[in-house]
Amino acid sequence: MSLEQKVADLEKRLASLEKNQAKDQVALVIFSEELDRAVAAFIIATGAAAMGQKVTMFFTFWGLNILRKQKLYAGKDWMSRMMTMMAPSGASHLSLSHMNFWGIGTKMMMMKMKEKKVATLSDLIKTAQDLGVNLIACEMTRDLMNIQDEELIDQVGSGGVGSFLGEALQSRLTLFF
Amino acid sequence: MSLEQKVADLEKRLASLEKNQAKDQVALVIFSEELDRAVAAFIIATGAAAMGQKVTMFFTFWGLNILRKQKLYAGKDWMSRMMTMMAPSGASHLSLSHMNFWGIGTKMMMMKMKEKKVATLSDLIKTAQDLGVNLIACEMTRDLMNIQDEELIDQVGSGGVGSFLGEALQSRLTLFF
Amino acid sequence: MSLEQKVADLEKRLASLEKNQAKDQVALVIFSEELDRAVAAFIIATGAAAMGQKVTMFFTFWGLNILRKQKLYAGKDWMSRMMTMMAPSGASHLSLSHMNFWGIGTKMMMMKMKEKKVATLSDLIKTAQDLGVNLIACEMTRDLMNIQDEELIDQVGSGGVGSFLGEALQSRLTLFF
Repeated sequence: MSLEQKVADLEKRLASLEKNQAKDQVALVIFSEELDRAVAAFIIATGAAAMGQKVTMFFTFWGLNILRKQKLYAGKDWMSRMMTMMAPSGASHLSLSHMNFWGIGTKMMMMKMKEKKVATLSDLIKTAQDLGVNLIACEMTRDLMNIQDEELIDQVGSGGVGSFLGEALQSRLTLFF
Repeated sequence: MSLEQKVADLEKRLASLEKNQAKDQVALVIFSEELDRAVAAFIIATGAAAMGQKVTMFFTFWGLNILRKQKLYAGKDWMSRMMTMMAPSGASHLSLSHMNFWGIGTKMMMMKMKEKKVATLSDLIKTAQDLGVNLIACEMTRDLMNIQDEELIDQVGSGGVGSFLGEALQSRLTLFF
Repeated sequence: MSLEQKVADLEKRLASLEKNQAKDQVALVIFSEELDRAVAAFIIATGAAAMGQKVTMFFTFWGLNILRKQKLYAGKDWMSRMMTMMAPSGASHLSLSHMNFWGIGTKMMMMKMKEKKVATLSDLIKTAQDLGVNLIACEMTRDLMNIQDEELIDQVGSGGVGSFLGEALQSRLTLFF
């Protein structure tokens, strides 16, 4: 092979590597509705966004309740109404995964977080949106739990497993919460 | 350095990059036996397989119960018999992680999933196997919980942490469920 | 473009790829204090370290209790004292995530693990440290739960989300436990 051919061959292989290399992006799945897990997820998401990564958070199953701003009952069948009733009303109504003790443990933790000047979950969500973190609601979950647009906070996108995988397969960091 | 030498050097570095680059593969650890987490894992697994990724699901601890087809008691010591008794009998006998309410919440969710034409977990497992997703049972867990071959569905492989890491360290996407 | 220029251009692009490529390292977040999840995390961590990966385990929220060696109450306010009281006293006092049954299930599992010669969590932590696994305590959690140096086992570092992300964004494998 001539040197010209060798260089052309290297160029092609290099272009293929560049195309397949992980991008500067992070993809997180938020499955749980527990306060502590949600805080952990948003601290990692905002941290990564501040470091210049493109961050996508994909909210599925119970995780979608973190993005609620209200509950609507009109036009839902009885099962959807029951699910809506049981769901927490958004980021400031979640419970800890451990030591909840009928809400007392959660209240204590929130007092500690305030005392130690740790951002609340609502603050973290706001910061994430300001930093351009992409919040995506799982379409299947929305359909399954009959969650309307008006029940979610603003600037939340919708997507299926394909849109999650499109991001995740090119990400440097992927975690399931 | 001559141009020939430079090109030879680039070729060597390029080959090393190609070797170390993440392959088109996905490695998932399934640790939990909760219906909702299992459904999430299989939706991601089948989605990735449909997009051409080589997918390996590694079932460990409680996750192994998802792959059960029956329970056997013969030839087990009393502790293994008790563990077998407490375990769910497979994919169609799992409970939700939240809102189970002694099985009522889980039944409601399964009715909703049927109404919305979301695939059941058993369907998802079948689809995963049809798409060539590799289902691996953790050897240590099988030994610990004394789970026999006849208790698991067909076409399930066995492997240790080394076989998981062999796949995971070369994967584009890794998640722990 | 002359051949010399082409080769110089390839060299630059190759250097950039080498810099951005995932290193031989693994970054794990340990959020839970459940015995089974902790064992799974340490089996993966020690396995990866034995395979030559640089492994960092980042302990946050309840996960920090895995690294406890004792509980101190002096000089803490009443909320921190209550949190300390409720926390498990370290790796040999954790409970299973399922089938705990007021400790009976956990004891049975530990007997089984001993019988099957599976390493205990304390052994696994020791092995991890011997293999050079980096154990990092989350600074925010330490502050929030008022955990003193003397309450943690030796050779544990401290770090924030930035130090986790610094490792994780360059890792081949990242998992959240």
